Formats: sequence, structure tokens, C-alpha cells
Amino acid sequence: MITIVSKQAAREQLNHIVEVIEQEGVQAHIAHAPDHTVVGMIGSIKPALVERLQQLPGVEKVEKVSKSYKLASREFHPENTVIQIGDVKIGGGELVVMGGPCAVESAEQIDEIARLVKAAGGQVLRGGAFKPRTGPYSFQGVGVEGLIMMAEAGKKHGLLTITEVMTPEYVDICAEYADILQVGTRNMQNFDLLRKLGEVRKPVLLKRGFSATYDELLNAAEYILAGGNPDVMLCERGIRTFESYTRNTLDLSAIPVLQHLSHLPVISDPSHGTGRRELVEPMTRASVAAGADGLIIEMHTDPDNSMTGDGVQSLFPDQFARLLRELEQLSPIIGKSFATPKAPAESFIPQLQQ
Amino acid sequence: MITIVSKQAAREQLNHIVEVIEQEGVQAHIAHAPDHTVVGMIGSIKPALVERLQQLPGVEKVEKVSKSYKLASREFHPENTVIQIGDVKIGGGELVVMGGPCAVESAEQIDEIARLVKAAGGQVLRGGAFKPRTGPYSFQGVGVEGLIMMAEAGKKHGLLTITEVMTPEYVDICAEYADILQVGTRNMQNFDLLRKLGEVRKPVLLKRGFSATYDELLNAAEYILAGGNPDVMLCERGIRTFESYTRNTLDLSAIPVLQHLSHLPVISDPSHGTGRRELVEPMTRASVAAGADGLIIEMHTDPDNSMTGDGVQSLFPDQFARLLRELEQLSPIIGKSFATPKAPAESFIPQLQQ
Amino acid sequence: MITIVSKQAAREQLNHIVEVIEQEGVQAHIAHAPDHTVVGMIGSIKPALVERLQQLPGVEKVEKVSKSYKLASREFHPENTVIQIGDVKIGGGELVVMGGPCAVESAEQIDEIARLVKAAGGQVLRGGAFKPRTGPYSFQGVGVEGLIMMAEAGKKHGLLTITEVMTPEYVDICAEYADILQVGTRNMQNFDLLRKLGEVRKPVLLKRGFSATYDELLNAAEYILAGGNPDVMLCERGIRTFESYTRNTLDLSAIPVLQHLSHLPVISDPSHGTGRRELVEPMTRASVAAGADGLIIEMHTDPDNSMTGDGVQSLFPDQFARLLRELEQLSPIIGKSFATPKAPAESFIPQLQQ
Amino acid sequence: MITIVSKQAAREQLNHIVEVIEQEGVQAHIAHAPDHTVVGMIGSIKPALVERLQQLPGVEKVEKVSKSYKLASREFHPENTVIQIGDVKIGGGELVVMGGPCAVESAEQIDEIARLVKAAGGQVLRGGAFKPRTGPYSFQGVGVEGLIMMAEAGKKHGLLTITEVMTPEYVDICAEYADILQVGTRNMQNFDLLRKLGEVRKPVLLKRGFSATYDELLNAAEYILAGGNPDVMLCERGIRTFESYTRNTLDLSAIPVLQHLSHLPVISDPSHGTGRRELVEPMTRASVAAGADGLIIEMHTDPDNSMTGDGVQSLFPDQFARLLRELEQLSPIIGKSFATPKAPAESFIPQLQQ
Repeated sequence: MITIVSKQAAREQLNHIVEVIEQEGVQAHIAHAPDHTVVGMIGSIKPALVERLQQLPGVEKVEKVSKSYKLASREFHPENTVIQIGDVKIGGGELVVMGGPCAVESAEQIDEIARLVKAAGGQVLRGGAFKPRTGPYSFQGVGVEGLIMMAEAGKKHGLLTITEVMTPEYVDICAEYADILQVGTRNMQNFDLLRKLGEVRKPVLLKRGFSATYDELLNAAEYILAGGNPDVMLCERGIRTFESYTRNTLDLSAIPVLQHLSHLPVISDPSHGTGRRELVEPMTRASVAAGADGLIIEMHTDPDNSMTGDGVQSLFPDQFARLLRELEQLSPIIGKSFATPKAPAESFIPQLQQ
Repeated sequence: MITIVSKQAAREQLNHIVEVIEQEGVQAHIAHAPDHTVVGMIGSIKPALVERLQQLPGVEKVEKVSKSYKLASREFHPENTVIQIGDVKIGGGELVVMGGPCAVESAEQIDEIARLVKAAGGQVLRGGAFKPRTGPYSFQGVGVEGLIMMAEAGKKHGLLTITEVMTPEYVDICAEYADILQVGTRNMQNFDLLRKLGEVRKPVLLKRGFSATYDELLNAAEYILAGGNPDVMLCERGIRTFESYTRNTLDLSAIPVLQHLSHLPVISDPSHGTGRRELVEPMTRASVAAGADGLIIEMHTDPDNSMTGDGVQSLFPDQFARLLRELEQLSPIIGKSFATPKAPAESFIPQLQQ
Repeated sequence: MITIVSKQAAREQLNHIVEVIEQEGVQAHIAHAPDHTVVGMIGSIKPALVERLQQLPGVEKVEKVSKSYKLASREFHPENTVIQIGDVKIGGGELVVMGGPCAVESAEQIDEIARLVKAAGGQVLRGGAFKPRTGPYSFQGVGVEGLIMMAEAGKKHGLLTITEVMTPEYVDICAEYADILQVGTRNMQNFDLLRKLGEVRKPVLLKRGFSATYDELLNAAEYILAGGNPDVMLCERGIRTFESYTRNTLDLSAIPVLQHLSHLPVISDPSHGTGRRELVEPMTRASVAAGADGLIIEMHTDPDNSMTGDGVQSLFPDQFARLLRELEQLSPIIGKSFATPKAPAESFIPQLQQ
Repeated sequence: MITIVSKQAAREQLNHIVEVIEQEGVQAHIAHAPDHTVVGMIGSIKPALVERLQQLPGVEKVEKVSKSYKLASREFHPENTVIQIGDVKIGGGELVVMGGPCAVESAEQIDEIARLVKAAGGQVLRGGAFKPRTGPYSFQGVGVEGLIMMAEAGKKHGLLTITEVMTPEYVDICAEYADILQVGTRNMQNFDLLRKLGEVRKPVLLKRGFSATYDELLNAAEYILAGGNPDVMLCERGIRTFESYTRNTLDLSAIPVLQHLSHLPVISDPSHGTGRRELVEPMTRASVAAGADGLIIEMHTDPDNSMTGDGVQSLFPDQFARLLRELEQLSPIIGKSFATPKAPAESFIPQLQQ
């Protein structure tokens, strides 16, 4: 349930409302919307509490939230969540681009790619140190060393870093080295991992399970939020359908739907979402046009020899740079800001079909 | 198989090549690409014919086409197909917008909507006279009278018209009244209908079956092309997945994929593709950003009382007009041209999440 | 809506009820259930008619039917529909086996296969004369001649025949030669075809569209029933999912679900449902155990050289015969009867894994 | 790769072969097939090793295994794996039935249900102590206490026990109390959990992810096998499709396919596979007819008040008992043995449609 408090209510009135709620053993979460303040209530709420709240000064009304998730819902938290990390704001009017290889392979590799991401205008360096792999005999990532290499490359080139964490016991070490922790598609409902991420003070990018509904994704986010970590980004990365030409079917409707149901930023992953390099460019543009708050894109200096075999969906560095310049032109049309270092305002035409 | 003929080849050389092919009982289709001419060959091709062709003057090489469809493939026909109907060109650099109600309901309704489509900048009026309905007790369309009403409204307001044809026996009458014939998602593999459409001289918009692969869609187009009708547009209108929040999952990757595999124009249908009015705007923008050659969008003056119950996915007239002004801003960024009558170059911000 | 009439009501009372309904321009369909008689009403039913009916002698109550389909629903028609064709009853306690090649290829082929189907204990000969093919350059069936060949083979060997009809204009000729008309998976929502089949006096086997819900299948059946043809069988033949090891995913839950929602017989097609010969045997057994009223199974004397390329899912004649002997053992356990000519009551063990 | 060793080879010859393999740093796994012995090799295998092996006495040939999984494949391990726990053998000719509630709710509840499972003829008691729940505010299970309650109920009534483990850190405590550890559908690709389960000495039932392919399921099993735990059962529990009438689509083709590709026992879960009580009976019969080695079925004494809300798919105790008597009749037809305590050989007829 939520208590809607008038914008005109005095600070003490709001404090008193919260006090009344917490006296009944119910948690209160405050969120400021443009027209009013929302006090979310989680716990067992008795009718007597509702009646008492309705009579308190400053209270406009007490309402039920219709979803199984609460903290993640826009009803509960009407204004957009903006996650600020250093200078970068995610979920506000800025477009955020995260780029890098599928896996960290060596210090040289990640350093060179970081340089290229920065030069192209990206704000975040992506790279996997621990890799989830379908079979046990595939390359599983370079581990903790990879975290260190990536942290150094990020610091050197002025980039934030994001990396995947696969199991609760590695959350702390990943949180030590990376700026954003990623939950992969196979772990979206690894509830112990989600609970553990609720306890850390680092933002989390939560990828949609490849067969998860919007509702399930928002409930998974709720685990993290309910644990006390408010900084969650949702990520559409393609769903599994009958179509096998693409690795997944990138469901771009997820972007406006999730932004409608939730206040959390929504990131698109056109690399995994298509699994084909030649589709990354058009689907990146489409993601931005659909309203994405950011992108996570695979780029590799030598895609054909990547250690994970995912090179087929990685852009070459020049494609990545060119794509970011396109986004610079496209973003203002959609009401977003994005700038590349040199910003040569050239026009472009879709390349794929030529 | 295809025979690649040099751009420098004389006209008589090309004619002779075609003659040699047809003497063997094989059909020859000529397509002009920027760098060479492609002569597609359909039928049983003997090794002796291949050998003979390879030695003819003007022939660069004779190659196998790797797909089960041929006339629809870009290998076979490298340059984009541009379908010209009156002043409107589909598949070239212009963006084409088709708008209108799910079903023609009355002469007044379709006249008023035609006026609004034209005023907003649309080039084509859509409307169903014959409606495919899941159950036999639902409104099945007003029939031939609806065709006439729509033709009159189109003529009066200077719009082309498009309508769905459901069965071979109605192809001729639909072709008499409408400028473009539409094959619906349930009929994508109604092969007798496709064959009949191969015989008419009107362009066809072929909707992807809601569970059809790209390959199946292109093979369905091949039925029409092989029948002698070269003017086919492909339409992505959403596929059936496990996600039920949206009516379908609009698969925007289909746009660049189909443009890569084929030379035919690709149209997006964000109305059926999402089934929700509030998603039509962002998904229209995303379709254009992904490279769509056109859009088919439902608009109704009184969506909540539409006779098909599809009003929930229809835009209100002012939303439609506003969306087309957005496209006017977006199109040049993607290398397409599109103009609205008044063109007030206002900037906009996504509305959904506010 | 339905009017429930007491079992004790006199015949004249029932006649009068029907008269009252029809006077209001509403159609009445009578169905006898064990405990009462159901008079289904289709059309625009005014409150006054309901009130009047409620007061007529013999009427127990007047109720709404909750589904969009009516004639196909078990609510409307509580007892099982049993379709009798010659000596064969479908939908009663007998298990019905339809066997034969994907396509009729020659008179010799279909005669030999008919002999083998009969010898193994099958009651119906299947075979396609008109074949729906994904692409226009594939073998499209031998046409009307194939119908004649199959009719002769069926007559000679004492088998009923079933064949697919793809378009309204061929319904009459197919009905002339075949005992059962089949609607293929791609045509489940070819509504003009369904309407035409409502007018013929031959039973119809309606295959589920490969992405059709149960509800859509029952609404498709409703088109045929509403046209006046009461003899419809439903057929589960596999749905399209993400799993590509099998050609389709045979959804055996469809059998009890459809029998629960409807009174129509349910047939299983393990050949198309799996697309792999080695799975036909276990999935046939599973279909019978799930309660199927019959099976339609591909069998070919030379599967590897079949003209459609579907041989990979066709049984060899000895596999077919062996499978039918297994069904003879299994059927009585499930409360069904099925007999093979020689009936050697050997026991068997699953073969696949050995 | 695998080395095929002749059945006539002396024990010392086999030992020598293994020695040669291990000297090269390659792991050797021995499996005895009826006609020969298979020595599986995992690791980096040099051509020189292959050449040397081919010349050793007793070696028939050295072959490549075509799958990404090896230990799980039937190529690598031709004979069925039979898992023996106490008196119960899983994967041999016996049918194994696991029954019980979705969640352990109290000592009384699990004791009473254990009594009923045993009385009906079940061999294993199922029950969740830790419950994976879509949202954080749902009942999450009673935890370790539940493990103890279930262990006591199992011991008292002479049943084995199976329970789900959700995270690596709980594997040891679950292994202490339960006889079989279950990996739930959402954790099929929780690779750290799988690795940890490779280290325990308890059998594991691995549920197929609700959108996992057969190949992914077998690769997940490979993680456990490669860790050193050979006792893995595979479980088909329904996949996610477009059909929403059932909770999932139970893919029974998975049973013969997995038994063909692998030597591991295959268990069917018709409760989660359908999500509807009235479908559990026919789909249990169909599972057995398709060749399942066992079943895991939800049963509850008061399903409508179950704490997880999954009661809608739980059988009542008398339905469960009746179903097991049906299986007693059905099993010998399929070459399996199964006995209920009292074994009243009544015949039965499907109930659903009556």
C-alpha cells in the first residue's frame, strides 16, 4: 500500500506519518513525485492503520498497489530513478553507453579496448571476469585477476566498469573492483544472489531472463530493492523464440513497457539481443528511438579470435565509434543528450542493405 | 542459379544469353544491379547449360543461389525494389505511412478518417472490408460495400488505399477497388491465395505469419513473385511468444534482416505488433530507426467504440498527427525523407513515462 | 446461451421450446446429455425470450455459455460426439488408426501401402493429393489423379480415406473421393475454407495451427459446426517452440484439455508432432495413454525416397505393424478397444534406448 | 574422445590403457557396455596419444564424441545408469514414484503425507524446505527445520526423500538430511550450484530449465558429472510456450530423446508440467507410456490451503492412490515394474471427460 502525502504538507507532518507507520512494524519508503510525496508501506497492514493514516494532516489518500512488486513499481515511486556514479547519471536525460569485450582476456587487451571505448564516447567499460558457459569445458573467464585488470584499465582511461557476478560468494570481491555489478540472464531468478546484491552499495544491472516475463523481471528487481539497494537498472537482452536466425529476439517493446511500469532505468543489449554483428547498429538506433536510457554493446579488437566465441556479435572498434557518432545525432531528437569526443556531425545512411 | 552479366555487355549479348537459357525450358528473370546484371534462372538446369553459359560473351560467372527462395533474394536481385504507385514510392528513400481504422464501418467514418490521415501527412489509407475473426460470431466486416466506401474516400482525399483479401475468389474485386492488397498474418501460407496474387497487377503487402520464420516469409513472397507479380512488400507485425503483456512481440530485427536477405521493401505494423495504444508511438520511432521503409498504423476517431474491439491499439487522431511530425524530424537522421503538411518543427520528449 | 430441458419433458414440450426459440429468429441446436437435454441458442437473444423460456414446461434453466465458441463446447453438448463412417466409429470407445504416406505418389505406391495399413489393423488410409509446401518450387502433390488413386486403393483394401483440402474451390472434389477431409495446420484459420467445409456432408479432421491456442482451435471448429457440419475431429500435431531438436513440440496435454472443453473426438499426429521416426513409437503410446481417440501416422514403403522429403518421420511398414500390436495391448488398460488382424499377444520393451 | 576396448581385453590391458591416457594429463572414465568397454577421455588430447592408443593391445578404436557434453552422452557411456539408493533403483526396469507437497509446512503435515505416499506405493517423499519464489514477499519455505521434519517423516514411513537446494552454501546441509537433491528449473544454469553438486555423494535430480533445450540440459548435467558425481537424473517439467491454458507445456518427447542422447534416468513432473490437477492423471499415464523412469507428483491433504498457492496442481490423496494403481496396470505393458501395497487389479476408464 501507499500513502499519498500532499506537496503542501510540512516536514513534521511527513515525519509523523512515517512514525505512525513504523510503530505498527511496517516499513516506510519515501519517494518524492512532482505533485505529491509517496510513502510506500511494506509489511502486514491492518485496516486500523489505514483508517488512522487517512485522518492524519497532510495525507491525501491511502491506496493499494496493484502489482506483486512494490518498490520497483512506478505507482509506488512515481519519478524516475537516476543513478549517479561519479559524473555519470543513468536514468536521467543522458544516454549511457557501456562497451567492451565479452570477456577480459589480458591486461593489454582490456587496456586497449578501454582506450577505444573512451575515445568513441562511451562512459562505462564492460568485460567478463567470470563467464557463465553452457558447458563445463568452455573457457570460464580469467577470474579475480580479470577484475583487477579491468579496474586498472577503467581508472587509467576514465571509465566506469561493469562486470557479471554469478554467485553470492563473489559479490563482495566484484563490488570491490567494479562500479556496476551485472546479473546475467541465466541468474535473473537466482534469488540468493539477488538477496546478496540487496546488501551491497553498488548499482546493479539486472538482465532479463531469456524467457522471463516483464512481471518476473520486476519481481527479481524487487528482491534487490527490498534488500536495501535502490540502484537497479533493468536490461532487455533478447528473449528466446522460435526464430533461430537471430540468437535471441530483441524485444524492444520491453523498453517503454518497463519505463511505464517502473521508475528504474532501462538498458538495451543489442549484442546478445541479436547475436549478429550486422544487426547491432540498426538495433542500437532502434533501442534509443524506443527510449532506452543506455546501451551495453560488445566491442573487440579481434572479434574473430575472441576467447568466448562470441566475437560474431562484437563490433570492430571503428564500427563502435561510428555507431556512437550516429547516437550523438539521434539522441536530441528523442530528448536525450549524448556527446562523442570529436563529434563530427556527418550524416549517415543505413549500411546493412548496401 | 544466376548468371552474372558484365555491365559492359551489349544489349544483344544479354538477349542472346536469355535466349540460350529459355531454349532449355528454363525461365530467365533479369535484374539490374549497380555493377552488373543478374539473370536469374528457375527450372531444371543441366550442367551442359552452365558450361555453355560460362563461355558466352558478356558472362562473368554462373553461380548457385543458396536459398530456397530465389526471386525474393538479394543475391538474385541485388538492388532494392522500389514500388511506385501514383506519386508514392515504396522502398526508395521515402518513408511511407499507411493509416486508418481496423475496419471500414461506414462511409462517414472512413471519409473522416481519410481526411485526418491526409492532413497528418500519411500517403495510404488502410481499412478492412473483409475481416478475419477468430470466432464465427464476431463482426466479419461490411464486405464489398466497404471496398467502395474506402475507394471513394481515398480518391476524395488524395490517398492510396490498402485492404486485406482473405480468399482467392475475392482477389479480383479487391484489386478493382484498392491500390494495395494485403495478406493477413493467418493467410501467409494460404498458398492458393498467394498464387492468385501472383497473377494480379496490384502491389501486395504480405504480413509475416505470427509464428513464421524469416525464411518462411520469404518463401511465401516467392509464391507471389514466381506467379509474375514483382511488387511485394514484407510486413513485420509481431510474433507470438510467451510474453502476454503485449498482444505480440514486435520483432524489429526482422527489418534489417529482411532487407539484408531480400530486396523487397519492409513495412512495420506497431499497432498489431504491440496491441497497446501507448506503445505505438515508441515502437513506430524504433521501427524507423531500425530502417523500416514504411509503417501501417491503426487510427480511429472513436477507438473505444470500434466495431472490431481492436480500438485498444488504435491511436486517436491527434496522437497520429503528432507521431507523424516526430517522424518528420527522425527520418532525415536515418537517411529517409518524410514530410507532414504543416511541418511545425517542434521538438518532443517521450510521453509514456511521464 | 443454452436452455436445459428436463429428461422427463415430453417430446412435444421440447418441440414447443424449439418453436418458441426459432420464432424469435434464433437458431436452436438440440443435444442429448445423460441427465438432461441441452438446447443451444445462437443469435441475438432478448431478455424477453429468456424470461418466456424460463416459464415453459420442461425447462430446468436458461444459462449463459462462458466461451466464445458454443457448438464446440462441452457445456453446450455434454456427451461425446461419435462420428460413424461405415463400420468405423470415431470418438466412442474404439481407437482409430489412420496410416499412410505423406503424399500419394503413384497408384502402385498407394495400393501397396493401403494393403500394409489394412494388414496391420489400421482403419483409415491417409495420403496427400494436394500438398501445402513452404516454397513454390517443391513438389506440390499429384492433384485430382491422386484422389482417384487413393479412393481406389481404399475401396480395394476396405479402408476409409482421409486427404487434405487446401482451398474452398477444391472442397467438393475432395468430398467426392475421400471419406474424411483434413484441414492442415497452416489453414486452421483459413476462414473461407472452414465455412465451405461447414456445408459439406463429410467429416472433417481439423489440425491445430502450429501456434494456435486451444481456444483458437475450438473457435476454428466452431466455424465448421456453425455452418451445419457436426462431424469435426480435432487434431494435435505439435506446436512451434524454441526447441529445434524435434520438428515441433507434441503437446499431449491438448488431448485431455480438448476433451474437457469439447465433446469432439481428439486425434494425435505423432509424425508431424515430432518429425523424427524414432520418436513416433513412444509418442504414439503416450498419445493413447493420454486418452487420444485416434492417431494419424505416416508410413511409407521407401521413406528415404519419398517425394516430399518427409520420409524422415515416416515409419517403415514393419515398425507400423509392430506399433499397432503394441496399441492392441495398451488400449484396454485405458478403456479403449483396438484389434489387429492376427493379434499375436507378444510383450514388448521400448526399443529406442537399446 | 573415447577409446573403445574389446570385451576380450584382459584387465591388465585395460589398466595399461588408462595409465597411458593419464600419463598425458588426460582424465579417463571407464564405462562398461554390453559389447565393449568405453574409456572416455577428457582434456587436451594430442594426435600422438591417439596414435599410441590405437596400437595398444585390446583397443578396438579411438573415436571423437560429437556432442559438447561427454560424460552425459550415451556415446560415451552406452549402458543405462542405474542409481541405487537403499532398496530403490532408478533407471533400471523399476518405475519410481516421488510424491508429496510443494512445501513442507509442519511436522504433522509432512508426516501425514508421508504415510499416504507410502500407503499408495510411492518410494520417495518430495517436499520443499527452501522455496524459489518469483517475488520476495511470498512464503519462502520453513528452511532447515523443514529438512529435519521431512527426514524424520521419511525415516518413519520407509521413504527416501528429495528436496530442492537453491544455492551452493546450502548443498551440504541439504545433503545431510535428504537422499536426493533437486535443482529447480530456475537454477538449471546456476553453474556454481552445479559445480558444488558435483562434489557431493548424493544423487541429484536436475530439472530442465523452462526454456532450456535438450542440449543445454545435458550440458548442465555434464557440470555435475564432470565434478565427480555420477548419479544424475534428468527431469522434464514443462517448457514455456505461447499456450497459457496450462502453466507450462509438458514436452513428453523429451523422455525418449534424452534416453536416446544420454544414459541418465529421466523423470517426468506432470504437476508443474501442466499446473492443473485434472491433467496430472492423463499426463502421468502418458509419461509412463513414453518411457519415463519415474515421476515426481505433488500431493497435498488440503491443496486449497497450501502455503505456496500451488495447491491447484496438487492431487488429493485418494487421486494419488488411484493413479498409482493405474500405473501398476500400465507399467508391465511398457516393460517396467511397479507395485502398490494392496494391488487391487481394477480396470479403469479416463475420468476427465465424463
